[in-house]
Amino acid sequence: MAAAAPQPPPPPFLATIPENTVPETAPFRHPLYARIRLATILDVPHIHKLIHQLATFERLAHQCTATEASLAATLFPSPNPPLPFTSFNVFILEVSPDPFPPPAPQEDTTNSSPLLKTLHLDLASEDSEKEIFRSEIGGDVVVAGFVLFFPKYSTYLAKPGFHIEDLFVREPYRKHGFGKMLITAVAGQAVKMGYGMVEWVVLDWNVNAIQFYERIGTKVYQDKRICRLTGEDLDVEGSAK
Amino acid sequence: MAAAAPQPPPPPFLATIPENTVPETAPFRHPLYARIRLATILDVPHIHKLIHQLATFERLAHQCTATEASLAATLFPSPNPPLPFTSFNVFILEVSPDPFPPPAPQEDTTNSSPLLKTLHLDLASEDSEKEIFRSEIGGDVVVAGFVLFFPKYSTYLAKPGFHIEDLFVREPYRKHGFGKMLITAVAGQAVKMGYGMVEWVVLDWNVNAIQFYERIGTKVYQDKRICRLTGEDLDVEGSAK
Repeated sequence: MAAAAPQPPPPPFLATIPENTVPETAPFRHPLYARIRLATILDVPHIHKLIHQLATFERLAHQCTATEASLAATLFPSPNPPLPFTSFNVFILEVSPDPFPPPAPQEDTTNSSPLLKTLHLDLASEDSEKEIFRSEIGGDVVVAGFVLFFPKYSTYLAKPGFHIEDLFVREPYRKHGFGKMLITAVAGQAVKMGYGMVEWVVLDWNVNAIQFYERIGTKVYQDKRICRLTGEDLDVEGSAK
Repeated sequence: MAAAAPQPPPPPFLATIPENTVPETAPFRHPLYARIRLATILDVPHIHKLIHQLATFERLAHQCTATEASLAATLFPSPNPPLPFTSFNVFILEVSPDPFPPPAPQEDTTNSSPLLKTLHLDLASEDSEKEIFRSEIGGDVVVAGFVLFFPKYSTYLAKPGFHIEDLFVREPYRKHGFGKMLITAVAGQAVKMGYGMVEWVVLDWNVNAIQFYERIGTKVYQDKRICRLTGEDLDVEGSAK
């Protein structure tokens, strides 16, 4: 719901109002329209750049060997692409100063209607990388972030869920609730499919993120440790007799 | 290779010798033949019992709502079952006092030949639950454990990998290296498919397991925390506007 004037401002991650709601008192604010949609192979160049920005942000750029070609081959395999949401999936976050068209009815057949939101900002966002992140769909639409997720399985529930592997919002668009909007999109898809869980990983020093996750009911496990076998050690173990 | 008499005994997880190797000096030892193969829907009753034993072992039996019907529907969906290793997979560990037949050539078409090993034990294993874990395939074959795993995606590598969700060996068959054999089976499948990683989770108090994982080259991350959104909180988040 749009906040009426006398109410205190909502925290940043709630500073969104439902689509088609006309704010009563926001004459000087700048609208920013946001959309989350399932990525296609045409989005690979933007996904590639976003992944490298994420790796730089995490100071792991030296570990990032993803190329446009390797991303296209593994995220959008041909000639037998998996059905949506049965394998690896990317949701793309786009923003625009102009409203997005309402979802076309046929888009529902993939069980994935785009998620739309409208923000009203005090300042227009300044994006120095606007040109290189200009969306494939044209107009003034800019790619602002992504989330990559895939099915996981909960043995005790005997139910699938989703694991969020990466979530990233470009710097000019942070602190507007877009991270929450991307989690909501994955959670919404999980609920739609009758899945039992959405899971992700946070670094233990990221206290703000952990507090936010706990506020929305997330359980953060303190006693579980992730183990990874990669590279030559994987080759040795995989060929053990 | 079979250990020659003067050498010290290998640690338990190495106390296996390759199939078809005749031990030179083991006249009083009891052979135990082991096989790991891809599960089918016929294995669901055993998978169900193993999952409940695992939940009891982890003191989480109250969280375990898996039934034979829910496991069958989610692990072996019909009428459109996914290709092997593209979704959720179970490897079953079977043991027998008699040798298993060599893998039939046509089994290679699923890209998953069974993994065979022969152990020579000082004592014959005593299994009070032998009857309820007798294998579907008949004979004196008993189901001794399982591993459940599914594809995951590494964004930085732009490569799939496998995530091991659960691994369990029944009590009478522990300390013989079967846990390692199950990890080897998943790692071998990952290598065969050109995947970049096998990942799993360990509880931080399980020091012996962590030391063993590190010995085989596993990186155990101390700073990552797993976050899970389930139940009503997932429903709320998934329907947020």
